[in-house]
Amino acid sequence: MTPIPELVERAELLIEALPYIRAFQGKTLVIKYGGAAMEQADLKEQFAKDVLLLRLVGIRPVIVHGGGPQIGALMKRLGKEPKFVGGMRVTDEETVEIVEMVLVGKINKEIVGLINLHGGRAVGLSGKDASLLRAHRRLHKMPDGTSVDIGLVGEVEAINPEPIKLLEENGFIPVIAPVGVGAEGETYNINADLVAGDVAAALFAEKLIHLTDVTGINGEDGRLVSTLTKREAERLIKAGVIDGGMLPKVESSLRALTGGAQKAHIIDGRVPHAILLEVLTKEGIGTEIVL
Amino acid sequence: MTPIPELVERAELLIEALPYIRAFQGKTLVIKYGGAAMEQADLKEQFAKDVLLLRLVGIRPVIVHGGGPQIGALMKRLGKEPKFVGGMRVTDEETVEIVEMVLVGKINKEIVGLINLHGGRAVGLSGKDASLLRAHRRLHKMPDGTSVDIGLVGEVEAINPEPIKLLEENGFIPVIAPVGVGAEGETYNINADLVAGDVAAALFAEKLIHLTDVTGINGEDGRLVSTLTKREAERLIKAGVIDGGMLPKVESSLRALTGGAQKAHIIDGRVPHAILLEVLTKEGIGTEIVL
Amino acid sequence: MTPIPELVERAELLIEALPYIRAFQGKTLVIKYGGAAMEQADLKEQFAKDVLLLRLVGIRPVIVHGGGPQIGALMKRLGKEPKFVGGMRVTDEETVEIVEMVLVGKINKEIVGLINLHGGRAVGLSGKDASLLRAHRRLHKMPDGTSVDIGLVGEVEAINPEPIKLLEENGFIPVIAPVGVGAEGETYNINADLVAGDVAAALFAEKLIHLTDVTGINGEDGRLVSTLTKREAERLIKAGVIDGGMLPKVESSLRALTGGAQKAHIIDGRVPHAILLEVLTKEGIGTEIVL
Amino acid sequence: MTPIPELVERAELLIEALPYIRAFQGKTLVIKYGGAAMEQADLKEQFAKDVLLLRLVGIRPVIVHGGGPQIGALMKRLGKEPKFVGGMRVTDEETVEIVEMVLVGKINKEIVGLINLHGGRAVGLSGKDASLLRAHRRLHKMPDGTSVDIGLVGEVEAINPEPIKLLEENGFIPVIAPVGVGAEGETYNINADLVAGDVAAALFAEKLIHLTDVTGINGEDGRLVSTLTKREAERLIKAGVIDGGMLPKVESSLRALTGGAQKAHIIDGRVPHAILLEVLTKEGIGTEIVL
Amino acid sequence: MTPIPELVERAELLIEALPYIRAFQGKTLVIKYGGAAMEQADLKEQFAKDVLLLRLVGIRPVIVHGGGPQIGALMKRLGKEPKFVGGMRVTDEETVEIVEMVLVGKINKEIVGLINLHGGRAVGLSGKDASLLRAHRRLHKMPDGTSVDIGLVGEVEAINPEPIKLLEENGFIPVIAPVGVGAEGETYNINADLVAGDVAAALFAEKLIHLTDVTGINGEDGRLVSTLTKREAERLIKAGVIDGGMLPKVESSLRALTGGAQKAHIIDGRVPHAILLEVLTKEGIGTEIVL
Amino acid sequence: MTPIPELVERAELLIEALPYIRAFQGKTLVIKYGGAAMEQADLKEQFAKDVLLLRLVGIRPVIVHGGGPQIGALMKRLGKEPKFVGGMRVTDEETVEIVEMVLVGKINKEIVGLINLHGGRAVGLSGKDASLLRAHRRLHKMPDGTSVDIGLVGEVEAINPEPIKLLEENGFIPVIAPVGVGAEGETYNINADLVAGDVAAALFAEKLIHLTDVTGINGEDGRLVSTLTKREAERLIKAGVIDGGMLPKVESSLRALTGGAQKAHIIDGRVPHAILLEVLTKEGIGTEIVL
Repeated sequence: MTPIPELVERAELLIEALPYIRAFQGKTLVIKYGGAAMEQADLKEQFAKDVLLLRLVGIRPVIVHGGGPQIGALMKRLGKEPKFVGGMRVTDEETVEIVEMVLVGKINKEIVGLINLHGGRAVGLSGKDASLLRAHRRLHKMPDGTSVDIGLVGEVEAINPEPIKLLEENGFIPVIAPVGVGAEGETYNINADLVAGDVAAALFAEKLIHLTDVTGINGEDGRLVSTLTKREAERLIKAGVIDGGMLPKVESSLRALTGGAQKAHIIDGRVPHAILLEVLTKEGIGTEIVL
Repeated sequence: MTPIPELVERAELLIEALPYIRAFQGKTLVIKYGGAAMEQADLKEQFAKDVLLLRLVGIRPVIVHGGGPQIGALMKRLGKEPKFVGGMRVTDEETVEIVEMVLVGKINKEIVGLINLHGGRAVGLSGKDASLLRAHRRLHKMPDGTSVDIGLVGEVEAINPEPIKLLEENGFIPVIAPVGVGAEGETYNINADLVAGDVAAALFAEKLIHLTDVTGINGEDGRLVSTLTKREAERLIKAGVIDGGMLPKVESSLRALTGGAQKAHIIDGRVPHAILLEVLTKEGIGTEIVL
Repeated sequence: MTPIPELVERAELLIEALPYIRAFQGKTLVIKYGGAAMEQADLKEQFAKDVLLLRLVGIRPVIVHGGGPQIGALMKRLGKEPKFVGGMRVTDEETVEIVEMVLVGKINKEIVGLINLHGGRAVGLSGKDASLLRAHRRLHKMPDGTSVDIGLVGEVEAINPEPIKLLEENGFIPVIAPVGVGAEGETYNINADLVAGDVAAALFAEKLIHLTDVTGINGEDGRLVSTLTKREAERLIKAGVIDGGMLPKVESSLRALTGGAQKAHIIDGRVPHAILLEVLTKEGIGTEIVL
Repeated sequence: MTPIPELVERAELLIEALPYIRAFQGKTLVIKYGGAAMEQADLKEQFAKDVLLLRLVGIRPVIVHGGGPQIGALMKRLGKEPKFVGGMRVTDEETVEIVEMVLVGKINKEIVGLINLHGGRAVGLSGKDASLLRAHRRLHKMPDGTSVDIGLVGEVEAINPEPIKLLEENGFIPVIAPVGVGAEGETYNINADLVAGDVAAALFAEKLIHLTDVTGINGEDGRLVSTLTKREAERLIKAGVIDGGMLPKVESSLRALTGGAQKAHIIDGRVPHAILLEVLTKEGIGTEIVL
Repeated sequence: MTPIPELVERAELLIEALPYIRAFQGKTLVIKYGGAAMEQADLKEQFAKDVLLLRLVGIRPVIVHGGGPQIGALMKRLGKEPKFVGGMRVTDEETVEIVEMVLVGKINKEIVGLINLHGGRAVGLSGKDASLLRAHRRLHKMPDGTSVDIGLVGEVEAINPEPIKLLEENGFIPVIAPVGVGAEGETYNINADLVAGDVAAALFAEKLIHLTDVTGINGEDGRLVSTLTKREAERLIKAGVIDGGMLPKVESSLRALTGGAQKAHIIDGRVPHAILLEVLTKEGIGTEIVL
Repeated sequence: MTPIPELVERAELLIEALPYIRAFQGKTLVIKYGGAAMEQADLKEQFAKDVLLLRLVGIRPVIVHGGGPQIGALMKRLGKEPKFVGGMRVTDEETVEIVEMVLVGKINKEIVGLINLHGGRAVGLSGKDASLLRAHRRLHKMPDGTSVDIGLVGEVEAINPEPIKLLEENGFIPVIAPVGVGAEGETYNINADLVAGDVAAALFAEKLIHLTDVTGINGEDGRLVSTLTKREAERLIKAGVIDGGMLPKVESSLRALTGGAQKAHIIDGRVPHAILLEVLTKEGIGTEIVL
């Protein structure tokens, strides 16, 4: 049996969460889920529990997940030869079909299943459900300034927040796969980071949280930046300090903020319970981005 | 321009639907969607419009779809060797994963997309969403009375009707893929006919409609039976008159009726607008099954 | 039994109504009911069914009816001698009493009864109910510019839309008799065309539909005008092309549009199912008036 | 200016109403309105104010009115010759039409108008509105035990309480004319006393109050009976002490009580504010009938 | 038994209240309760009944009470020596504790109990409940312009109207003790007149009524002023005509009016049923103050 | 800055509370507050935070507090001589007045204030508010079987749960002082343990928790009993093992269970965060009592 003093100490830790629960109750958090947190078994389970705890204490998590190695694996097994234009993979109809099957029929269902296994009530949504993510073709900008059509890669044109709201207002946890639908019903693969930002804006979310595989954004001196303003972010992008995979995360964050979200965070998904730490303790982790 | 007399005749046809709309408003129809109606382009489009019209006039369609040739096609492409025990395909973990991807990530999304393309608000659900279809392993009964484990083939243990109701009460059209979730989170492939029957019972549906590729149930004399009671159905099964693919449809219908649905119908999905004809005109088509 | 192909054709006609049902669901249509459509037995029955079908598919009809030959007949039977001033019938207290009895106690009840006989839930309202139509005396303008008091002929001063809304929001069909009430409780006979226009404005109706005994409004060339703008309507009135009984219908339409209704229509009530044709098919009939 | 002591005395009278207001708040009172209270100008006005005050303090009056001398007057003016069978007036179609016009188009509207003139929100209803009073033919029982068809005289078959409830729950005062509708849409004249009793039962009214032109029911000794049980009432009827016009009032009261109303009262409508006296003071007036 | 004519006269007095009930239904009246009306047994009972009657007829009384001789009595019994600075009693911690016990634990409970004894549903509130009255220290202004700290005497800083509204919307009668709570949780004694004014403003009350022991405000000529504008009130204060205990009542009234209340009244609580007379009869009593 | 691993450990402790939060959300906990937990400054503060955290995560605490040394202290200061009959203190009117002032005006307000100071929304209630605790005189049973009247000591006759429910459903924390009101409006002092049990029964509480100054109930062997059934409790009482101040707590617990509460607990209020430990961790503390 646990000795009383240790129990008391535990209770005190619960009490420390009190002001944060109060601050975020009834608020929506959009979480971009990906990277290690979506691949390592222990991190996956901790993520599911974190999301569930937030929901239980009255905070409303909405999850947007990305793809993962499974897409490539299935394409390879199907002997699908990658084609490239200007260094970018061309997404033909067959490819987008594979992408949709893996995102909606496999990854989304795994996340939903894991949360529900711990007692949650997650419901998966594709961008096609209730035409949630209406999209159109996104041309790829080449370094020389020209644009190239790389197929069924889309960008969000309009978001229908109604089904997400219906679910979150009724105690469910929406889990969104980044598949969009075009005006003719065609399927688009969309960058999950950008979807998360647009969803956060459409829901006027309290926070947009990007789970990544780095500790946050580093400044020019190579040290972690705790708080980044829009202006500084734009400067760091121009200076090439923010680049690569971090670019769409920052772009997504700025779109979320401009569109009505309160704050955006780039945090380290490799840290167990990273979301709880960010939301319910006074020590935020990673980098927060504000207008 | 259409001459007035013809217009008037059209209006009269609308008026004929009046008593049926009145009778079924606010009622739930569970439609098992499959066969030709799910494969032929023109029938697919007519199905989408029928469902949409029903929803618009205040009737609540809930769709349960089955699989189709796509599952076999993908398995073949993936070089998945079929294993058989007692003549039945063994569904191992890899197989059930493929089944889930095709059902949830491809077929379900096609149906949802098609309905929405015509202006509806369909939302796809897998049995994993909000643990909608809780299932356990279904052993296969051999002719010699023994039972054989053929893997991840499940049967419904419990249905959580809450998310379906939430969606239909808010004007959405739920489209359900027959994938179940077990106590440990494992995935089960479930016979869609049986899922439809259990969903119809759980929702106390007004009607369960099976769209098939035959005109209905034929009696011992080989002629179509318009109305079949539970007792007669059981007799025809015993006599071997009802057999093969018709067996699960009749089993599903009887379970729906026993569980609280009002009526079950086996109708010919190859007839354009078969659902509308069944629901909104005085000439029912196919076979109706009652307690 | 109807052969399947014919049934299918019928279903297709139902499907054609789909976009119109979607467009007008939850919207209010104010229908001025009068003329042949209110006198011929078959047209009366078709009118009742049309109204009922609109209501069933979620559209909200509100009916304003006029008087008819019954008023004159009763006056004659009562030996009531008509008095005229400037060519206009003087409406003394005894006359307005007869008018009220016939409008409220006979015509209104016939319409209500007919709709309910076919399964609707119509409720009659006089302008006195909940002081729905508050009115004051309307002086008659003489050709020489002077005004003459012709008795208890009123014009709408204020509309209390509350009871109409209560009824339509709860699935009832309000049927309004054009009798107004003055500040001292006195009864006024009001032109039904004008009442319909004012009611349409007060309800911000989607459409005001005048059922008449002509095909619509003819232009200077004597041919039917499909769409008439406010400006053109005013020009045609000035030019004397629109005159006689059509004048109050156009005046009513313009007041409805100015006051918040979306569209007004002058259609031919002698065509069976004229309302359905106007509302649920792509071929509108008659003349539509817009701002 | 009124001297303070007199004002105080007045306030005390208001205070005396307190327990009665508390007891009847939210409860329905069905008032059969007729006789002198419906004919004398001062009594009419007092009636209107009484009803209004009850409504204002949260009690829900529902009025059922009868006919009056106006019916006979109009029939006479129309030269309508009365026909009799077994001493009873035969109500042919023309007669019932006149009755309906006077009841619905004249008397009902006068009552509605008077209440509204004092600031109420009365809404008139005929038994045809929303098929409120479904009726069938009532044969007249002759002294020799045979039954005679005297035409369109009906008795209530079913009451649709929905529109009455909708109105009273939304602050309106329903005023009901005793006209019923048959299965074929035919019009029936129904005894207003009996309608009031059936309406009181259908609404599970707290009280049914009959306004009459007598002080109440007298016993065998010719003295007013304060409280009458069902059993005693039946005995007095058998003994011929209760007879004539009092018979339908007592019959109506007993049907109301058996059907779910709490109490019935026969009070003197010639006393100013008779309803207020009955409902809001400790001295009830007239005769109360209980199960 | 009361003779009928007298009963009728009583009913007429009820009817006279009709327009006032209509005018004030659903409106909030804040009543500052104190003086003789809170000390004399018969006046206390009449007050309880008045408040109850107002509530029953749909008007919403909110009571703010002051202290009384009981505070001094308890202090004396406890041998608490009064200290004075600049002529004002210094309220130390021990004093404020006594004040709170008497106001909240005795006077408030007596009022609540009395109203409930007559059938009401009063609920007492201290300014600490749901931090209803947030306050800070109020320094006493000396004649020489300096300010002196006289201890735990507070003034309202912010009002949380939520619990008052919750109670009044659910049929309860809130009774508020004038005790405030500071930022550190400290207790403040606040002038009840001023609390009443601030509460009236926070609730956008229809009326603020001060029950006093005088007939109202007298003008320079020593005669009662029926209606006083803000400007005149300020003039009379400057001229020293309004002074002493009347000053905080007028200050409270002006703050109420400026903050959103409609009217303020200074009336004579020694008159039995003074509140009813003010609210439900055409002869207002005392002085009304308007912007 | 706290190192990440320690933060993670903290998050894990939050996660451990997850199943308990899920189990008790929306449920009512009645907490009898008294003893050391109500007297020591640090325990008081921890209690306030515990209650607040429970409320924040959706659990509904209702507090019933007892008296304390303050009552005796005030009585002593007021020179109130204690009178005894049969060893019991006689509670005369003056005594009950002092008790009420201290319970309602001092202790209740301290608790309310402390919870609100930490951000809660506590509202104090006396048994007089909305006649929450209707009581009658409780005679004292003497050892010889006779009953002695010891004055205004009451026992609960009926509970009006409405105001408690209204408050808890709207996010408030009700804090109840154990003062009852008699049929004539007289005040009763009631044992707080018993009030807590009756309130728990009236609210069908999930748990009744008695905060005491002992570790729980000891059995005949002097060791703590973890779980006690009703039958065993009754046996231990009979055997004299449960006696003294523990008697009313066990009596209260049994009444709560019989009346509809799920569980009762006797726990050690001297342990910091005792309530949180009991409710949100798997190691319950103290003794639980079940039917």
